[in-house]
Amino acid sequence: MRLTLVCLVKPVLHGYFRSSCSWRVRIAFALKGIEYNQVAVNLIKDGGQQFTEQYKTLNPMQQVPAVEIDGTTLFQSLAVIQYIDETRPGPRLLPVDPKARAQVRMISDLVASGIQPLQNLYVLQKIGAEKLPWAQHFINRGFQALEPILKQTSGKYCVGDEISMADICLVPQVYNAQRYNVDVSQYPTIQRINETLLEIEAFKRSHPSRQPDTPADLSA
Amino acid sequence: MRLTLVCLVKPVLHGYFRSSCSWRVRIAFALKGIEYNQVAVNLIKDGGQQFTEQYKTLNPMQQVPAVEIDGTTLFQSLAVIQYIDETRPGPRLLPVDPKARAQVRMISDLVASGIQPLQNLYVLQKIGAEKLPWAQHFINRGFQALEPILKQTSGKYCVGDEISMADICLVPQVYNAQRYNVDVSQYPTIQRINETLLEIEAFKRSHPSRQPDTPADLSA
Repeated sequence: MRLTLVCLVKPVLHGYFRSSCSWRVRIAFALKGIEYNQVAVNLIKDGGQQFTEQYKTLNPMQQVPAVEIDGTTLFQSLAVIQYIDETRPGPRLLPVDPKARAQVRMISDLVASGIQPLQNLYVLQKIGAEKLPWAQHFINRGFQALEPILKQTSGKYCVGDEISMADICLVPQVYNAQRYNVDVSQYPTIQRINETLLEIEAFKRSHPSRQPDTPADLSA
Repeated sequence: MRLTLVCLVKPVLHGYFRSSCSWRVRIAFALKGIEYNQVAVNLIKDGGQQFTEQYKTLNPMQQVPAVEIDGTTLFQSLAVIQYIDETRPGPRLLPVDPKARAQVRMISDLVASGIQPLQNLYVLQKIGAEKLPWAQHFINRGFQALEPILKQTSGKYCVGDEISMADICLVPQVYNAQRYNVDVSQYPTIQRINETLLEIEAFKRSHPSRQPDTPADLSA
């Protein structure tokens, strides 16, 4: 009985349509077939709704996403994704083999620690006028490392032929690269895998252009 | 026979005495009781030995650490630590309970994605003259979030009473904070846990002041 009640409570994703870290979690939910509710946290409006005292109780870092799930609140997208993977049935988001798991985490962390934090909204606002070349520099630096890694690890997807957390990180980062006018065709393996993944329903449904808080002029 | 041979080959850590990400891996090896060899990659000398073509083959991101282990080369410290945890006996570096694991990963990622990348050597060199206030800002921002989180999750250590990957991330980040003159006494929970951990042999032995490449004037 208790288990049934727990399952009836849908997770709540506090996020923003264009946040790459929110998109990661949306992809994970979609791949696992988990229904969830969304609460929009507009990172621009009112000076940023993530800075309210109310939101700070959900995620003290005042970043999106925050996820209410199983009676607790989780944040940091890779921690959320691995929690979902470890507690929910459906396709595995990390492979069983330890070396392949390490490859998935290496690629995920290269994006989540090596690129994204250096080109997110908060940092670019602090950089000011030079924000576009700054963002391009750090995305290109990351992609120059990622391209030869993916040449070794990839099959159809980032690591072999199964979709993993690495793919969940890749697609939103390529989306950011394109927003900042990085020429992704310099990185043929990244481009190939990204295009393959964008054909998959879980990546389409979770896309920034198709969220409840997507502004009308950006909707697909 | 083959297993024996594999075990005889010690892992090789390519790192730098003062790199916080190298220190994380040294702590993990020490906690697990794994012997390893070290190769020094001096991040300052010759314009940075991590930028050589030779090192680039080990870690295309041209950052430390890189770890040769079990016939492969791994990088991104949290991926390395979790690989070690999943393939080696000894004390667990992540707890069994999924919610506790998520807490460990949240704290680890808060440091590894939310603080460290914004105050590492490469970024500070790009920031230039304003590097000290920049580093202080991002460390304080992270610690202001981390302090209330640790108040909820901690026992003796970051998550409960068992040492975990979260502790492995905390101590090197506090060391960096002190290098950049951040007043850590503003964060009493962080300070308490850090001081407790620094009494433990694995944290002492792996300390930047006690490595083969530590300059004589910084040796303890």
